[in-house]
Parts: sequence; C-alpha cells; structure tokens
Amino acid sequence: MSTEKEKIKQTIMELYGELARLTNLPKSMGEVYSAIYLSEKPLCMDEIIDFLKISKGTASTTIRKLEELKAIKKVWVEGDRKNYYKISGSIPLLDSMFKRDMIISDACDTLNKIMDNPMDEETKKYAEKKLHGILVIKEISKKITESLKMYDNVDYEEVYRKLHQNSSKEKK
Amino acid sequence: MSTEKEKIKQTIMELYGELARLTNLPKSMGEVYSAIYLSEKPLCMDEIIDFLKISKGTASTTIRKLEELKAIKKVWVEGDRKNYYKISGSIPLLDSMFKRDMIISDACDTLNKIMDNPMDEETKKYAEKKLHGILVIKEISKKITESLKMYDNVDYEEVYRKLHQNSSKEKK
Repeated sequence: MSTEKEKIKQTIMELYGELARLTNLPKSMGEVYSAIYLSEKPLCMDEIIDFLKISKGTASTTIRKLEELKAIKKVWVEGDRKNYYKISGSIPLLDSMFKRDMIISDACDTLNKIMDNPMDEETKKYAEKKLHGILVIKEISKKITESLKMYDNVDYEEVYRKLHQNSSKEKK
Repeated sequence: MSTEKEKIKQTIMELYGELARLTNLPKSMGEVYSAIYLSEKPLCMDEIIDFLKISKGTASTTIRKLEELKAIKKVWVEGDRKNYYKISGSIPLLDSMFKRDMIISDACDTLNKIMDNPMDEETKKYAEKKLHGILVIKEISKKITESLKMYDNVDYEEVYRKLHQNSSKEKK
C-alpha cells in the first residue's frame, strides 16, 4: 500500500477516534466506524477483529451500537452467510440533534403550561428564574437544528454534490 | 412546597436526564446537574447525596466530571469548610462543539496536504472518495459553530437578556 494511502487512513482513524471521545462514546466506536468507512468493500466482524486487534466481545457490542445509531448498516454479500457492514452514508449524530431539539421543546411546552396555573408569588419568581436556562438551551438547539435541516435524510454523496454545486456557482 | 414547584422541578430533572442520555453521559450526570440547577442556594456533596439518594462514590465522580465539563463550579460559603457547588451559568456542551469543529478542520488540513503529494491514480481516487465524508462533516460542523458563536463565553443570564431584547425589538 502506498505511504500516502496509509497517511490518509491514519488521519481519518485519528479523527473519528477523537470525535467518539468528544461525544462520550467508547474509543472502539470510532475505531470500528473508521475501519468500515475506510474499507473499499463491506467488512464482516472477523475482518474488523483482525484489522483492529480487538476482542470478539468488543467488536460485537460496538457493531450493534453503531447499527442502533444508524451509523453503519448490514449488507448482503453474494455467496456468503456472514453479516457484512458498510457505513450507512447518513450523517452521524444528526438524528440525536433533532431528537434533542424535540425533547427540549416538549419540556418548554410543559413548563409553560405549568406556569399558566395559579401559583404564589414566590413560586412564580422561582419558576421564571429556572425557565431562563431552559429557554436559552431551547433557542440554541433551535439554531442548530435550523442550520442542519438541509442535511436530514440525505447521505454523504448527496450532501457533497450539493456543496460542490454551491461552490461552483460561487466561483462563477 | 407547592405542587406547581414540584412539577417544575420534576420536568426539568427529566429534561436533563434525557439530555444526558442523548449525549451518552451517565444518568447521574443529568441528575446531579439538575439538583444543583434547581437549588436556590449552592449545594454541598452531602446535600446532593441526601437529595438524590445516590452513593458517595457516584456523587464524587459525577461532581468531578461536571466540574471538568465546566457545567458546575465550586463556590465559597462563609463559615463552612465544605465544598459547595452551583451551576457555572455557561452553556453546557458549547465548548465541545467548538473543539469538534477545530479537530475536524485540522484533519481536513492534514488530508489536503497529503493530497498535494505525488500519488498514483488509484490512491488519488480512493483519497478523493474518502475525503467527501470528511468535507461534509466539516461543512456541517462549521454551520453549527457559526450559529453558536454569539453564545461563546457568555452565561445563561446574558444570553437570556439578549434574546429578550431581540424579541422586544421584533414586537415593536
């Protein structure tokens, strides 16, 4: 393998390792995702174990979690009964950001409804003060999801095509 | 305590519990943060243990992690040698989003530099394909951090004041 290819793989593996750490996910999540992302064909569990030198237990737990997060998906390989995996192509963590926005909005609605009920002055003052923080994270979450809406339900290639079209237009 | 106050506390505790789960943090992180957030005065570890019925080990680990994340901070209480905690007031997770953006940008720079090196056609094709995904997450991360810049290094109250000023202006 060319040294340049090695360097590219190394850089991308380190990136996903760091991103997993920052997202409070185990290091193995970043490693297994990278291995599948960097492979030119779908990988089975044995290949992942062999490539990363991790235990079967870690590999199987990590694969299951990555499937749950919809970061990778099973693919069928002709003439082989083993499970093979490729990246799903959709943007990781996007789902959880939309979910977060929904949870915060729901809590805000609930809090606003409670505030409509009759309450003494002291409770009212307390409620308003505590609501500040929630309204702020609601606002921030809304800003994030608004800027991400265009990426929902599209995959890497589609997003890349869109970005590329935009930058070509800008150059003209 | 009024029932309305109980309901407010319950809603906010559940919200932070859900947010911790979505961020892959242990449930106790959401609980301890909520307890401190909802308290009308700084809390010491014994009060947190007593309120949440958690073990001393969980409490002390969780408090340390929340301090590391700059979600809570120590405050000095006159005439008391124990450590007391209040929420830091700055927006949780904002720091990690800026950090993520930096890590992705750095990886992109490294990859672009590698691509400038001479390489065979096959490696070039591979590199371009694998760069797509990274460029997409770079773009997404840039959008997120751009929409969040105004909240950097400001606290809840400052953000709330700004939001409130804006909405008053809009109403005029």
